[in-house]
Amino acid sequence: MSDGGVATRPATEVVGVELGTRRYDIVIGSGALEELGPRLGELAPGGRVMIVTDENVARCHLERLERALAGHVALAPSVIVPPGESSKCFGELQRVVEEMLDAMLERGDLVVALGGGVVGDLAGFAAAILRRGVRYVQVPTSLLAQVDSSVGGKTGIDTRHGKNLVGAFHQPALVVADTSLLDTLSPREFRAGYAEVVKYGLIDAASFFEWLEGSWREIFAGGPAREQAIAASCRAKSRIVASDERESGQRALLNLGHTFGHALEAATGFSQRLVHGEGVAIGMVLAFGYSVRLGLCKPADESRVRAHLEAVGLPTDLAHIEGDIGDAESLIDHIMQDKKVERGSLTFILARGIGHAFIARNVDAGDVREYLAERLSAR
Amino acid sequence: MSDGGVATRPATEVVGVELGTRRYDIVIGSGALEELGPRLGELAPGGRVMIVTDENVARCHLERLERALAGHVALAPSVIVPPGESSKCFGELQRVVEEMLDAMLERGDLVVALGGGVVGDLAGFAAAILRRGVRYVQVPTSLLAQVDSSVGGKTGIDTRHGKNLVGAFHQPALVVADTSLLDTLSPREFRAGYAEVVKYGLIDAASFFEWLEGSWREIFAGGPAREQAIAASCRAKSRIVASDERESGQRALLNLGHTFGHALEAATGFSQRLVHGEGVAIGMVLAFGYSVRLGLCKPADESRVRAHLEAVGLPTDLAHIEGDIGDAESLIDHIMQDKKVERGSLTFILARGIGHAFIARNVDAGDVREYLAERLSAR
Repeated sequence: MSDGGVATRPATEVVGVELGTRRYDIVIGSGALEELGPRLGELAPGGRVMIVTDENVARCHLERLERALAGHVALAPSVIVPPGESSKCFGELQRVVEEMLDAMLERGDLVVALGGGVVGDLAGFAAAILRRGVRYVQVPTSLLAQVDSSVGGKTGIDTRHGKNLVGAFHQPALVVADTSLLDTLSPREFRAGYAEVVKYGLIDAASFFEWLEGSWREIFAGGPAREQAIAASCRAKSRIVASDERESGQRALLNLGHTFGHALEAATGFSQRLVHGEGVAIGMVLAFGYSVRLGLCKPADESRVRAHLEAVGLPTDLAHIEGDIGDAESLIDHIMQDKKVERGSLTFILARGIGHAFIARNVDAGDVREYLAERLSAR
Repeated sequence: MSDGGVATRPATEVVGVELGTRRYDIVIGSGALEELGPRLGELAPGGRVMIVTDENVARCHLERLERALAGHVALAPSVIVPPGESSKCFGELQRVVEEMLDAMLERGDLVVALGGGVVGDLAGFAAAILRRGVRYVQVPTSLLAQVDSSVGGKTGIDTRHGKNLVGAFHQPALVVADTSLLDTLSPREFRAGYAEVVKYGLIDAASFFEWLEGSWREIFAGGPAREQAIAASCRAKSRIVASDERESGQRALLNLGHTFGHALEAATGFSQRLVHGEGVAIGMVLAFGYSVRLGLCKPADESRVRAHLEAVGLPTDLAHIEGDIGDAESLIDHIMQDKKVERGSLTFILARGIGHAFIARNVDAGDVREYLAERLSAR
């Protein structure tokens, strides 16, 4: 794609996130990156822009982004963090913030987060606390970030207690999801992001799930079906976020599969043994399985969820995780530390069927421990 | 004051900070601490409370606070940080947040900041980012914190680039200013806080300033005049904060004396050579002096401000700072890094007279440098 190919550029789709004074657009489409220069110029006339990215993404896309911005905004030196979840820590947060201060980034300037979920969460959090809040733009480069983490304003870092336990709600000023950036993803990364796409179908859109069952090959191959899936996911997320920005209610539905998933990520030390989307895939199957155990959901629904995730090559069972993941007791400990715990009682997203997820409060920790012990013994 | 002395307790005054869904009360009065237990019980029924304080304050007041809370809320182990501005750093922030996570503090729980501005800023910021936001209560123990920093939701830490450059707007759920806590302050600390009281008169309340000129001896002695001064200051701050929570306009008036003051604090390495309120006192005189230089303000007003601050024993001139404070160039550098700089042009709070402060944008840095050089040469 050349910089000048305006005439031949496919149309982008724009999804609005309606949050009053904090409303913003998600621009979705192949080549959307090339439109970013004028958009940033409008957001911050006369302002400066600092790109935050990681080493891997910098190699693939940084030059292209810098070229797209040239002439439209003044660029501060980019900040490049090491790739991987371990960059979501206090040390990197301090380093990024101090580089922003070294560059004398001011309140009217912009931070651009170019990368996957890790970069978006870290750069967004740094922007949230720099001078008590500087605006930022998400340019997600992974499927997971395009359909989930770049939208909704959740930013943060991890501690030894768990993931995302420290952070801020800080909505981006703009999200630009250029689907052409996904071409450099490994199949494993793409699959992991796809788990979040499936999630939207499982929460409240049975027909979308059905469409995914029939269309996943085209989505994985790229092209219009992929963009359609991404846009549908962004619309779903946007709608839920607009109705409950700070997760006092319905937004918790987006955690379907995440409470189990986070515990599994913690159990594998947030390593490449199990990446986030894989944890979510297994976590969603566990959530459906536990719903079946409680008599809330038909076994056939659990099987259908499992079958689709398996078809695309995602792990769906504890047995699919290599190496040690501890016992049921240690998994429950990870869950208890999760921030979705209220007053010591467990809150889970369970389901009455595909497209019928709901927030279940006061779930009995002992029963969940027993369920996990059974699943572990079948491993 | 005994725990049970309800009948003899003097009435407390309550000032509301009207911020819609984030509105809260400031409770002012001698013995207000003893009412805190039931109030926290109401704010977080069944919840847990974690007190954050510093070593000095802990010695004087921690036991009294714990006694006041006993039976009303469950207490997590208190966090005690070293006293002084140097605790407003990334290292202490991380330590405080991790102690909160160690104690499994949850979203419905409460943090209580018991201390001066440093503790309030640090604990408030930790609460702001813990699980993306936990509520906190300010229990200010210094005059400065009671009349200024505990109200308005500005929280944060310092970096080597300057003060408060990293932080969050996070409104407290309640402020309890027990004026009896001020009895343990050193005269120097009390005087430093008094500079912020004077500030409210200088901004837009000439008659309050006049009252201070006549009443400062009673205010320093304690008693009704002191409570009156504190309540008037809280009302002034509350009004300005309610009209401009995030400092997009009028709230900047509260920075009167602070741009110069911060630069002087930086020049003295944030040491005991010049504490915050002292920097503000000199800064306010400099702001009036610079306003006179620009022909905006009568020299008699500058003299009157200086005379009152001198009467209470506050420093009013660069010559009153012991040791090296660098040259005009380095002071301007400190000012340029200040977060109130927009697009490289300087914004100052200047005055057309006592009670007539205003926001002056596009102030010429070269002229300010020259002014500072003159003041330094007279040192």
